[in-house]
Amino acid sequence: MRETTRIKILEGEDMRLWEDYPGFKSIMEDVEFEIKKAIRSRQSLIVKATSELVHAGGKRLRPALVLLSHFYGEEENPNIHRLAAAVEIFHMATLVHDDIIDESEIRRGVRTTQAKWGKGVAVFTGDYLLSKAFLSFSKYSRNKDIIQASFIAKNMCEGEIEQFHSRFKVDISLKRYLWRIKCKTAYLFSFCCWLGAMESKASKSITNILRRYGNYLGMAFQIKDDILDFIGNQEKVGKPLGSDIKNGIYTLPVIYALKKGGRSKELRQILEKGSFTHEDVSKIIQMVTEDGGVDFANNLLLKYILKAKKELEQLPRMEYTSLMYQLVEGIKTREY
Amino acid sequence: MRETTRIKILEGEDMRLWEDYPGFKSIMEDVEFEIKKAIRSRQSLIVKATSELVHAGGKRLRPALVLLSHFYGEEENPNIHRLAAAVEIFHMATLVHDDIIDESEIRRGVRTTQAKWGKGVAVFTGDYLLSKAFLSFSKYSRNKDIIQASFIAKNMCEGEIEQFHSRFKVDISLKRYLWRIKCKTAYLFSFCCWLGAMESKASKSITNILRRYGNYLGMAFQIKDDILDFIGNQEKVGKPLGSDIKNGIYTLPVIYALKKGGRSKELRQILEKGSFTHEDVSKIIQMVTEDGGVDFANNLLLKYILKAKKELEQLPRMEYTSLMYQLVEGIKTREY
Repeated sequence: MRETTRIKILEGEDMRLWEDYPGFKSIMEDVEFEIKKAIRSRQSLIVKATSELVHAGGKRLRPALVLLSHFYGEEENPNIHRLAAAVEIFHMATLVHDDIIDESEIRRGVRTTQAKWGKGVAVFTGDYLLSKAFLSFSKYSRNKDIIQASFIAKNMCEGEIEQFHSRFKVDISLKRYLWRIKCKTAYLFSFCCWLGAMESKASKSITNILRRYGNYLGMAFQIKDDILDFIGNQEKVGKPLGSDIKNGIYTLPVIYALKKGGRSKELRQILEKGSFTHEDVSKIIQMVTEDGGVDFANNLLLKYILKAKKELEQLPRMEYTSLMYQLVEGIKTREY
Repeated sequence: MRETTRIKILEGEDMRLWEDYPGFKSIMEDVEFEIKKAIRSRQSLIVKATSELVHAGGKRLRPALVLLSHFYGEEENPNIHRLAAAVEIFHMATLVHDDIIDESEIRRGVRTTQAKWGKGVAVFTGDYLLSKAFLSFSKYSRNKDIIQASFIAKNMCEGEIEQFHSRFKVDISLKRYLWRIKCKTAYLFSFCCWLGAMESKASKSITNILRRYGNYLGMAFQIKDDILDFIGNQEKVGKPLGSDIKNGIYTLPVIYALKKGGRSKELRQILEKGSFTHEDVSKIIQMVTEDGGVDFANNLLLKYILKAKKELEQLPRMEYTSLMYQLVEGIKTREY
């Protein structure tokens, strides 16, 4: 698919999430403006590399969580949209660096920074985005505890390195997988909710409920991401199916099929090869799916969704409560 | 040279700097302990990769600047050695990422993270160190303005990307070179002095003097670094001579020889080739040196050293004033 077409489709779909909430959509547009403003630089190469990332779109779920959680406190931080933008920039930094480690060529339907500009530029583009995010955190947060952002960053690195270190290893446990996706994804979701709540001086108990909501949402989100590598619509996902498998990243469906699947021995033998043809990948996807790996992952996903909703039930109702439920429900049906 | 021998030599030489100041040496040992403590992780691969970096030694100039500047204020931050360690960890992060962009195999006489573990691990090792540094900054600083650390990080990225973007370009101006080394090196030196001073609640005027001292010291330090690529003792520098040239990084000696050298046309033709044999590199080094490039760089270095000393003259005397002069003088004679 041509890049421009892809971008247009994404923008359309990305916006649909907020369509029924014009008030919220307008704040999300402020966030988008801030994201674009934040990537300005004297260095034209940085501007080029980061602009592509920004314009490739994305659902901006993480900034949305910051904003939504911000409604639960007593006060308003006038810079909350800037903090929400910082969270997305932080997320983009991790994507740029992830693509180096995974040697990914395509992300969100467009060529990755590392594929287009080389690993060197990708390293510093990610670093640049990371420092921009930290700059905004320290500038606009009214909270000494913004230190948490570095803690999240540290955990994400540990998760990523663990994943890299476990490549092509067939003995990965469910526990380790859950720890990994918590580090990689759920901590950041949880952090977004915590940040929004703290900045509005929400009560401790509400802040904790929001944190847990973010955590469960993040777990479900990552499991869905891993499922989409098996049964996603390739054009919508924006990268080839089986990309994780090809990189030796064995996620929940594989872990289940290896442990409980009827053909686990055969599967193990293929996976242990450490390098796969196109046919191998197709066969692995088929075996894992037929042996119930995807179903198992879907069930666990539903459990996290239920947990997230249970947290929501404990919160006072506000203007966008239904949107917060929709975000949870949306994970079940999301296609990219 | 075998790695272990190299490490021993470095440790010996590194320590010599503080030999005449046992009180200061003891604080530097605390810093070293903190650096080692900070790289602990649940992830064994991170521990391995970062331990090598830490044990490869280094002069720890940046932490020393934090500590020395801390003597100029009224109060003492009991965690100043932790902040000093954070600055070194931050610096290490940039080294790990620099080595990816430069594809360096050797640094400080030992194999680089990217050469030993691959670019992917190097990316996340750098990120991990960066977040650890930010974590310490926010945890131990008593200063809201710790935001400056992100500003420095952003500038360093801009400097590095500019350098990468200008590779093999022969039209780089003196002004641009000075901006680049300011971003790459001097900002961090300056930040170290500022941090030490601020944390001890030094007066504004003293803090500014220290900032300028750090800046001039950093400029001189980087110019010396660039000179060592031409006339250094390869074993002591810990990497092959002409590494910058080979990577297309044209520094001050080259810039001068291109502009004022008697054989600037011939030099330009070689440099424009964009890829060099071992003989090319030797010839470039010879031409640049003979045409006065290294002398010019040395003269500029001396000017910065003079400026740094003039700043020092304005400061009240304290126990380690002579050490601060020594750090400046040491740049002239440093061999690695």
